[in-house]
Amino acid sequence: MRKPTPIKKIKGGVTAPKGFLAAGIHAGVKPAPTLDLALVSSEREGPIAGVFTKNQILAASVVLNQRQLKKKTGQAIIINSGNANACTGPQGMADAKEVLDLTAKHLGIPKQAVFVGSTGVIGRTLPMSPLRSGIPQVITQLSRAGHTLAAEAIMTTDTHSKEIACQAKIGRQVITIGGMAKGSGMIHPNMATMLAYLTTDAAITPHALQRALTQSVDDSFNCISVDGDSSPNDMVLCLANGLAQNPLITHGTPAWNTFQTLLQHTCESLALNICRDGEGATKLVTIIVEGTKSHREAKQIGQTIATSLLVKTALFGEDPNWGRIIAAIGRAGVPLNPTHITLKFDEVTVVQEGQRVSTQADHRAQQVMRRKELTLSVSLGKGAGFHRLWTTDLSYEYVKINASYTT
Amino acid sequence: MRKPTPIKKIKGGVTAPKGFLAAGIHAGVKPAPTLDLALVSSEREGPIAGVFTKNQILAASVVLNQRQLKKKTGQAIIINSGNANACTGPQGMADAKEVLDLTAKHLGIPKQAVFVGSTGVIGRTLPMSPLRSGIPQVITQLSRAGHTLAAEAIMTTDTHSKEIACQAKIGRQVITIGGMAKGSGMIHPNMATMLAYLTTDAAITPHALQRALTQSVDDSFNCISVDGDSSPNDMVLCLANGLAQNPLITHGTPAWNTFQTLLQHTCESLALNICRDGEGATKLVTIIVEGTKSHREAKQIGQTIATSLLVKTALFGEDPNWGRIIAAIGRAGVPLNPTHITLKFDEVTVVQEGQRVSTQADHRAQQVMRRKELTLSVSLGKGAGFHRLWTTDLSYEYVKINASYTT
Repeated sequence: MRKPTPIKKIKGGVTAPKGFLAAGIHAGVKPAPTLDLALVSSEREGPIAGVFTKNQILAASVVLNQRQLKKKTGQAIIINSGNANACTGPQGMADAKEVLDLTAKHLGIPKQAVFVGSTGVIGRTLPMSPLRSGIPQVITQLSRAGHTLAAEAIMTTDTHSKEIACQAKIGRQVITIGGMAKGSGMIHPNMATMLAYLTTDAAITPHALQRALTQSVDDSFNCISVDGDSSPNDMVLCLANGLAQNPLITHGTPAWNTFQTLLQHTCESLALNICRDGEGATKLVTIIVEGTKSHREAKQIGQTIATSLLVKTALFGEDPNWGRIIAAIGRAGVPLNPTHITLKFDEVTVVQEGQRVSTQADHRAQQVMRRKELTLSVSLGKGAGFHRLWTTDLSYEYVKINASYTT
Repeated sequence: MRKPTPIKKIKGGVTAPKGFLAAGIHAGVKPAPTLDLALVSSEREGPIAGVFTKNQILAASVVLNQRQLKKKTGQAIIINSGNANACTGPQGMADAKEVLDLTAKHLGIPKQAVFVGSTGVIGRTLPMSPLRSGIPQVITQLSRAGHTLAAEAIMTTDTHSKEIACQAKIGRQVITIGGMAKGSGMIHPNMATMLAYLTTDAAITPHALQRALTQSVDDSFNCISVDGDSSPNDMVLCLANGLAQNPLITHGTPAWNTFQTLLQHTCESLALNICRDGEGATKLVTIIVEGTKSHREAKQIGQTIATSLLVKTALFGEDPNWGRIIAAIGRAGVPLNPTHITLKFDEVTVVQEGQRVSTQADHRAQQVMRRKELTLSVSLGKGAGFHRLWTTDLSYEYVKINASYTT
């Protein structure tokens, strides 16, 4: 057995690793004075890895980054909020390229080293005039302290910005990972309307970085579900610059394990922060499904529970209406024996072998439901399949926020 | 081309066809004076057909009816509301059998001719004492006028009861189909928490009746989606008694086509009534998906749109945020070319070949969204696949109703 990696949480965000600067300004995509343009920049080019939305409708920024990623190195990321630049056709692609070109030009770095991000309303072309003046301006604001404003500038319906920085040791060298994320509504496996930008000073090969990022995203961002929707714009990028001067990390080594653990911790922390900020969410609920034949089955059941409107409203109402959870399990499309189902609300077992335990257990479950964070555990007694994911409740506030987003 | 079947809508419900009586009483499953026990009874035994929930967790009533259905004939249906008798184990099955036995005994008909239904909270055993006294009592109330109270007695969160009766001619004989349904929340393809009981005086073989019912339910009840959940209790039963004295209808004949058209019309009318009564729904939205390679693809896209929380809240907010519909199309798991998507709100095209039409079109779409009933049409330009389904918006009221159902 491996010793757990000691992880140290430190203050800061994307500029916590050596050699990174950031800035966030109001450029004019959104009404003043809301911040709407963020820049993250490294003092030197290095490996970059990316994970993108699985939606088939892709925003210009996603298409462009996927092309840029072929070179596997990068140096700067420019992100606007307030407009998704999705479903905007050839004009949208031309606009995204212009943003990229202007950023490269004003930073004095190659075009191939710049990545872009957009989030906001779909179907409207980018307002280019504020971006043309905003890009040189955001560059003048780059600083170590700029991580805070950068994290604010990528927000849309978020109620607060999300940042994190963590360190671990690889041999004698301390490596740092910093991150910022945007997301609250439309959060679902496959990263719905979610942007996350991670930076690290670790020295790592592009391949090792991509493998670490893919695995970390799978077990973090792809395990949160607020409302089951997904967007054309979602992405996670991780930019490395090697300034920690650790021995180069390659895939599958103990050092890679340490790095991946640190990266996953960073991603999980941002993902849970997004979940807690789920639009109008009042509760963070962990769902654990075990005892299925396969991981796939556990995931299928978990996601059916996590996205059930009736389960989510019952969580909001603190109503231990576990029949809705059982009904969700039953329609998840996984063959099962109903008399093997066990269901727990935190420490309280409410269903044992498919039947209600007692009135007392229901009452105790109702107490558990008053908690701000709780765990629903489902066991099916069929095999070793396991999946864990997170969801939120569904409140009046959710409907209010989402009923009139564009108008 | 076949001439369309002239359908005449008449007053009444399950007792409109010849030879049927019904009643609804307060037995004591729910607090007084709410009605909670319904009975439908035919003066003679006849063919019966059934369609049941696809949830793997089955209520005792569903398991029992599936067994009873092997004989393919029936004479009476007894239904309680206020308790689903699901996840209640062997006790639940014993209770359902006792309800069936008592009904048969007091009606003086064979046990094999009785069918049962339950709807309400999951996981609690049936309160048998009120049912033991209620069953003889509901029998004394049987009458032609009793359809109204029967339709009320099967309600749970419904805001109004749902009944219909229609007639058509087969040769010179008039045949009548009557029906009542229960459902508002948890409505989804595969009949979530939905009960419908249909009666007919048509003379028809059990096989022809089952084929007609299966097809009618597929194109009506299975095309409505309020919140994507499904329950262990859902069923549609159709009981025939042959008293219209038409020549016996067999499958695949012109007379069968007429009967099936009439039955589908009845089912569709009840289904739309359920949809309009969607918990806290303010709008009835028809979704049409066409131009896919197959019906399956069209259905997949339609259901993804119909169950998207973000689409449903935008409908409630009358916000023409069509980006959410596009995003739902993109994550439906159907291969597509985004530049071939056309999207219309009633007569207004907002997206043509994957791109926004104009600001004016968006404004006109916003006018369309104020309508109580509207149609979203998606065209993908790939093939002849077609599916039509119905959904509702998601309102504050939905959350309110569902946040505290058991408590």
